[in-house]
Amino acid sequence: MQIGMIGLGRMGANMARRLSGGGHDVVGFDPSADARARLEAEGVASADSLQALVERLDAPRALWIMVPAGDPVDATIDALLPLLSSGDVLVDGGNSFYKDSQRRATRLREGGIGFLDVGTSGGVWGLAEGYSLMVGGDDDSAARLSPLFATLAPAADKGWAHVGPSGAGHYAKMIHNGIEYGMMQAYAEGFAILDRKRGLVRDVAQVAELWRHGSVVRSWLLDLTADALSENPKLEGIAPYVPDSGEGRWTVAEAIELDVAAPVITQSLIERLRSRDDDAFADKLLSAMRNAFGGHAVKRD
Amino acid sequence: MQIGMIGLGRMGANMARRLSGGGHDVVGFDPSADARARLEAEGVASADSLQALVERLDAPRALWIMVPAGDPVDATIDALLPLLSSGDVLVDGGNSFYKDSQRRATRLREGGIGFLDVGTSGGVWGLAEGYSLMVGGDDDSAARLSPLFATLAPAADKGWAHVGPSGAGHYAKMIHNGIEYGMMQAYAEGFAILDRKRGLVRDVAQVAELWRHGSVVRSWLLDLTADALSENPKLEGIAPYVPDSGEGRWTVAEAIELDVAAPVITQSLIERLRSRDDDAFADKLLSAMRNAFGGHAVKRD
Repeated sequence: MQIGMIGLGRMGANMARRLSGGGHDVVGFDPSADARARLEAEGVASADSLQALVERLDAPRALWIMVPAGDPVDATIDALLPLLSSGDVLVDGGNSFYKDSQRRATRLREGGIGFLDVGTSGGVWGLAEGYSLMVGGDDDSAARLSPLFATLAPAADKGWAHVGPSGAGHYAKMIHNGIEYGMMQAYAEGFAILDRKRGLVRDVAQVAELWRHGSVVRSWLLDLTADALSENPKLEGIAPYVPDSGEGRWTVAEAIELDVAAPVITQSLIERLRSRDDDAFADKLLSAMRNAFGGHAVKRD
Repeated sequence: MQIGMIGLGRMGANMARRLSGGGHDVVGFDPSADARARLEAEGVASADSLQALVERLDAPRALWIMVPAGDPVDATIDALLPLLSSGDVLVDGGNSFYKDSQRRATRLREGGIGFLDVGTSGGVWGLAEGYSLMVGGDDDSAARLSPLFATLAPAADKGWAHVGPSGAGHYAKMIHNGIEYGMMQAYAEGFAILDRKRGLVRDVAQVAELWRHGSVVRSWLLDLTADALSENPKLEGIAPYVPDSGEGRWTVAEAIELDVAAPVITQSLIERLRSRDDDAFADKLLSAMRNAFGGHAVKRD
């Protein structure tokens, strides 16, 4: 089917490629002429403005927004709204906060525009292996766009589902990322112990590689971790600094709102905060307290 | 090659089957006549005592112990030692503490007996899919028994490695299980939030199933979790009580011994302790304190 892809960054461009390769009529838009030219060179059409994009698509239209979460999504919707017609369907495939998606769905519904929040997992490997898609929104819109989901997913009947009303797709993706934080932290801690221990396990990368086959901890994240350790066993040149892009802290806030204890996901977020604070006030204060009550030496800067 | 398998429980019996199926000459021993008869019925030979087992094998012998960690391993070694000859090799494939394995290796070496500590992962699926094997011990013993590892692993060159000297195999398995605790807890918390939230994601089992394909959190543990949730979405009949069998607490102690922060693995262990304490003194005391300083109501038993 025909689909307009808005945002041809790492994720959007690969999704446009996979949709085009699957036989869909894809027209891309990105403010960057380079991003558009890269896809044009591969035979994927593009338009040089949102207006040109919308004009090029037949009504009722399907448009997929793949831009960073937050203001860019609202800005894109603001720019699109005057151009769209009743019956068009808009998808937000980014990592938006689910309450924002619920608000946007309500706003668009007033103009007769369908809205689907589609949590999308798979990263840069999605192009080859397919994406995991969690679709939230009304039944009609989800059914209409199902040929796209079937192409983007690893198989037509695997790795995607319409999981609930507006917000449900991004809610499921938020929880997915919370789990991802915990899994990553568990691997990271285990390999850190292996790395610290001397004279026993000789090659940490070898262990990561062998666990990929037959072990209880085998996973796609372990595949990536084994590759990273094999290429750079001492992780040289990588700073011990871990950003976060919101979904972990939303998961923690949601757990608290629901009175669910989620200590490991919470602790995984805390470890990221900790990694970014190399001058921790709390650590200094602890050192000062030890000095005050016990006369223990304070390490000076 | 010829191998004696001692302990024909869930793990040992399946490993005997996989070795026999791979063309090795397997003789099993278990004190239970039923356990022996089950394997005999499938064409795997067995002996009805350790002495009969040892007599049936050609020297230099290879014997694989698959009994619960701790005293049963020492008891088995005590019983075997007078029966063995110099040049024989003993494998402990269970979840022994790595320092015990180092002690046992030293003891056996004095009698000219080789000893390998082989961390074994794969659970009940290992029979079909192969086991992940982490081999610790001397080079000669590891090389001599490598045909067995090649058969037990998912492929001859995948999923097993000689990772270091005595203790290294069980050390790697200990860390493997520590990581497993953290991964399990991360999934458990994420699905708990999904289950608690009403009116949004309709079917938690459906989400688990779709994540199996293309998502960042796909793993073998997720495959098992999706099956469990599909069969019993509300987990009816399962008590919220989680045992542990040692490797988690050893990992935590090891992390502390090495001054490595492993908060998520530690917290995963703590959650298991918590799950077994439905009358927590600390919770009662917190309730009493809130009452004392703020007059907050105490919930009575």
